[in-house]
Amino acid sequence: MNHAILLISCPDRKGITAAITNFIYKNNGNIVHADQHIDDQSNTFFMRIEWSLEAFRLYREKIPEGFQPIARRFAMKWDLCFTDQLPRMAVFVSKHLHCLQDLLYRKRAGHFACEIPLIISNHPCAREIAGEFGIKFFEFPMTGANKKEQEKKQIRILKSEHMDLVVLARYHQILTAGFVKAFPHKIINIHHSFLPAFAGKSPYAQAYQKGVKIIGATSHYVTEKLDEGPIIEQDTVRVTHRDSLDDLVRKGEDLERMVLSRAVRWHLERKILCYGNKTVIFD
Amino acid sequence: MNHAILLISCPDRKGITAAITNFIYKNNGNIVHADQHIDDQSNTFFMRIEWSLEAFRLYREKIPEGFQPIARRFAMKWDLCFTDQLPRMAVFVSKHLHCLQDLLYRKRAGHFACEIPLIISNHPCAREIAGEFGIKFFEFPMTGANKKEQEKKQIRILKSEHMDLVVLARYHQILTAGFVKAFPHKIINIHHSFLPAFAGKSPYAQAYQKGVKIIGATSHYVTEKLDEGPIIEQDTVRVTHRDSLDDLVRKGEDLERMVLSRAVRWHLERKILCYGNKTVIFD
Amino acid sequence: MNHAILLISCPDRKGITAAITNFIYKNNGNIVHADQHIDDQSNTFFMRIEWSLEAFRLYREKIPEGFQPIARRFAMKWDLCFTDQLPRMAVFVSKHLHCLQDLLYRKRAGHFACEIPLIISNHPCAREIAGEFGIKFFEFPMTGANKKEQEKKQIRILKSEHMDLVVLARYHQILTAGFVKAFPHKIINIHHSFLPAFAGKSPYAQAYQKGVKIIGATSHYVTEKLDEGPIIEQDTVRVTHRDSLDDLVRKGEDLERMVLSRAVRWHLERKILCYGNKTVIFD
Amino acid sequence: MNHAILLISCPDRKGITAAITNFIYKNNGNIVHADQHIDDQSNTFFMRIEWSLEAFRLYREKIPEGFQPIARRFAMKWDLCFTDQLPRMAVFVSKHLHCLQDLLYRKRAGHFACEIPLIISNHPCAREIAGEFGIKFFEFPMTGANKKEQEKKQIRILKSEHMDLVVLARYHQILTAGFVKAFPHKIINIHHSFLPAFAGKSPYAQAYQKGVKIIGATSHYVTEKLDEGPIIEQDTVRVTHRDSLDDLVRKGEDLERMVLSRAVRWHLERKILCYGNKTVIFD
Repeated sequence: MNHAILLISCPDRKGITAAITNFIYKNNGNIVHADQHIDDQSNTFFMRIEWSLEAFRLYREKIPEGFQPIARRFAMKWDLCFTDQLPRMAVFVSKHLHCLQDLLYRKRAGHFACEIPLIISNHPCAREIAGEFGIKFFEFPMTGANKKEQEKKQIRILKSEHMDLVVLARYHQILTAGFVKAFPHKIINIHHSFLPAFAGKSPYAQAYQKGVKIIGATSHYVTEKLDEGPIIEQDTVRVTHRDSLDDLVRKGEDLERMVLSRAVRWHLERKILCYGNKTVIFD
Repeated sequence: MNHAILLISCPDRKGITAAITNFIYKNNGNIVHADQHIDDQSNTFFMRIEWSLEAFRLYREKIPEGFQPIARRFAMKWDLCFTDQLPRMAVFVSKHLHCLQDLLYRKRAGHFACEIPLIISNHPCAREIAGEFGIKFFEFPMTGANKKEQEKKQIRILKSEHMDLVVLARYHQILTAGFVKAFPHKIINIHHSFLPAFAGKSPYAQAYQKGVKIIGATSHYVTEKLDEGPIIEQDTVRVTHRDSLDDLVRKGEDLERMVLSRAVRWHLERKILCYGNKTVIFD
Repeated sequence: MNHAILLISCPDRKGITAAITNFIYKNNGNIVHADQHIDDQSNTFFMRIEWSLEAFRLYREKIPEGFQPIARRFAMKWDLCFTDQLPRMAVFVSKHLHCLQDLLYRKRAGHFACEIPLIISNHPCAREIAGEFGIKFFEFPMTGANKKEQEKKQIRILKSEHMDLVVLARYHQILTAGFVKAFPHKIINIHHSFLPAFAGKSPYAQAYQKGVKIIGATSHYVTEKLDEGPIIEQDTVRVTHRDSLDDLVRKGEDLERMVLSRAVRWHLERKILCYGNKTVIFD
Repeated sequence: MNHAILLISCPDRKGITAAITNFIYKNNGNIVHADQHIDDQSNTFFMRIEWSLEAFRLYREKIPEGFQPIARRFAMKWDLCFTDQLPRMAVFVSKHLHCLQDLLYRKRAGHFACEIPLIISNHPCAREIAGEFGIKFFEFPMTGANKKEQEKKQIRILKSEHMDLVVLARYHQILTAGFVKAFPHKIINIHHSFLPAFAGKSPYAQAYQKGVKIIGATSHYVTEKLDEGPIIEQDTVRVTHRDSLDDLVRKGEDLERMVLSRAVRWHLERKILCYGNKTVIFD
């Protein structure tokens, strides 16, 4: 059963919800999920609304035209999509494959409504698992000198394959600003610390040296500033003085898999709205 | 600034949200919070909607009359209240005073929008703290023989004092069916286990004997079946073989305070809807 | 580097630790890990002690003889093993393969010091994954009539393959008392609820009907009483009214994998001592 | 029943545990708790051992003399104390009184084996509650100019009152290096963030601006570097986009109380050993 989903943000004022829900009702749509949020600081209205297209009076391609007057009236930023359009997701990975494996496992188990046609790496390690899952694999070895050139090729492939989402599943290369700009709010990273603590390199070693009693993982959209994009999801796990650095890595990898998979799932289900450097999660 | 809050449930069909939000919009109300949920199993629609009464065109006493046609059209159960009406809450307690103290602390700290005019106990222990906080205290010693008589007196006081909510903050008496019926969905209990595990007496001792690795606390509405009413909130904490029964009690008491205070807060903010034996929490 | 590990329990009295650590010191052993616990209720002493065999004066096969006088003096139950002896683990599974896959993933990632030579199932579903990992697979279809017969064959295989541990990774058959007795404290089960809540069939459906706000998973040793053996590990995750039964299953499966893998790891590292119906976990 | 507790650290080598436990055994002591840890990186041995003095052959004042040869042999740093010696604890506080109230509540409930004879503040707010609990209260208003002078007076009082522990229960003054040096590893602070994230001022506002999905609290020993001393305990709680800054403060205050009380309790029970900038917690 196909659903339409609208993600909306606009300055808050009276009548927004009434206008949106009237539009759906008058066209004979049945709302199956609606959630809204008002950010008091910026006086911004956010909404996610999902309705069944069964018996809806507008053809799907006519919906934007029909909704346009409402959007204009309230100065909305809005995004319309349909649950039968499966997003296409590329996974970038380096040598640590646990997150990649977890994503592929969940895809196969039916937890992700998406296609994964592409795995890209700066190392050959993931070639075998890509093969097992019948996914195209591209290796782009990276040096300081060839980075921009390699990234251009990567972008070309991502564009030609019509990728909707890039997931950095422990991809240990810093993307250039040019790459990030080519996919705004479409790159999700997993960082293996509780950001903003331990940004940058070797977060587990940093955490171990610091003697923290809890470690974390953070999934966020990638922006031009390293490890500073809008946070989607975080989680933490307790550690003790008995845990070696290896134990931190082992416990942390479980966290990374959980946190990244939740972030990816919410993105695929269009449950995330970014504003400023924050996210609204309509879970 | 005064707000109106509607809690609504009805069979799900098209147009409900549009009808409600139109009603608010046409009367010049500004929605500050709206959340809805559809239970697929029973095809039931649930909504909590809160709007500012500043510049609202209907006097507050005229709102029910104005809303009635919509309610009838969709066969709604609905409940209207206003944020300037402070609920009146009575606390029942026996000998363990930690939950009572926590509730009074939070009230004083401004976390609860309510009045607490009454503390009732089957023991004298809480008299002193009631005095410190300037709250009326009634002691009703309980025996097998006098229970019904004492409960009648309690009900009379609760009614004459116009109590909206009764909180059992470790009150170690089982209420009779008659008492429970007099305050439907208006009695909140804290049970010191992760229900449905360890219902009834001495849950910490039961948990200790069982050797569980996690203990819990559960806050729920009281129904005629002991420890089986709709669950509002639960939380858990890790224990180990090193923890004695005393440690379980100590750790558990922290849980009880957190869990009960969240449940009470949600109730006071009208964020809870019961259906069947479950709750929707519009947090 | 090879280590010896002693797991000891006995009535508590003066001098136990001194006797044990003297034995190790006099034979030139270097203690790398020692942890003890005294259960006040039963006045029982428990210890796990691990020392390096580098430069130890006793050959490993002479250690029991050397330790015997101490054991006798304190009426110890004791168990000696060596870290270079990899336990042999069989996995039993039915149709839900997520726990099996997780165990195999962790084995391959180096998290488990064991061998997994055997997968046994009452269904054919796991045959393929067994093949991928090069593990022998035996299918024993079960009916009410053939159960005892089939179990006898399973026991024969487990014995002939010298299995040290049987892990029920969502094996949906109740073992007979005879099977359980053949492997005392050597069968680990994962139950998909927070025991003792929701024992038996369909715990997620039970939890959903009950409207709990937290779900759990429990790993325990199997005894003759269904779902009542000594608990090794438990964990919980928050759910809300928005979560469907499918969501509970999905969230719960993540829990099951984490909880079972921790229990298996502790068992393999000889960190668990059972007493009565409880466990001491020397983590 | 009086117990002796030894906290020991020294370079790791063979025979340490045997020597310590022999010492206790030969003097007829009964060990009630023993835990040890070896830090592989620095090859350091840590131990906490507690034994009953009932029937112990050495008078308590003779124990140091008796233990000295062992300590010298292994180059130990060691600390001996007795459970009947109640530590004396001073609480420093500014305007937020929730942690102070919680500490006093737990003291009264019997969770802390200590005396609290002193509350010191740079504001008058805590005077009343100090009075209620019959505790001496000293107000030292702070300006940039008078800080050193005021601290000198504070130190004088703390020394003359024989304080063993200073707890900064949301004391919003940065202590000078001189003050910190006067009480090495005897000052415990609660910082209202998950350190090292959001050190310094207004951590909740920082967390809110950052859009984190989890907030935390950290209790640590105070050293000369602000918010960088050895971490004793941390905990975290989930927040969402719905949570205002006030909600973060409210949720965070619950965390602060829990985390600080655990840290204080472990310190009072002599369960903490510092090494480098880390802690071993013998829980």
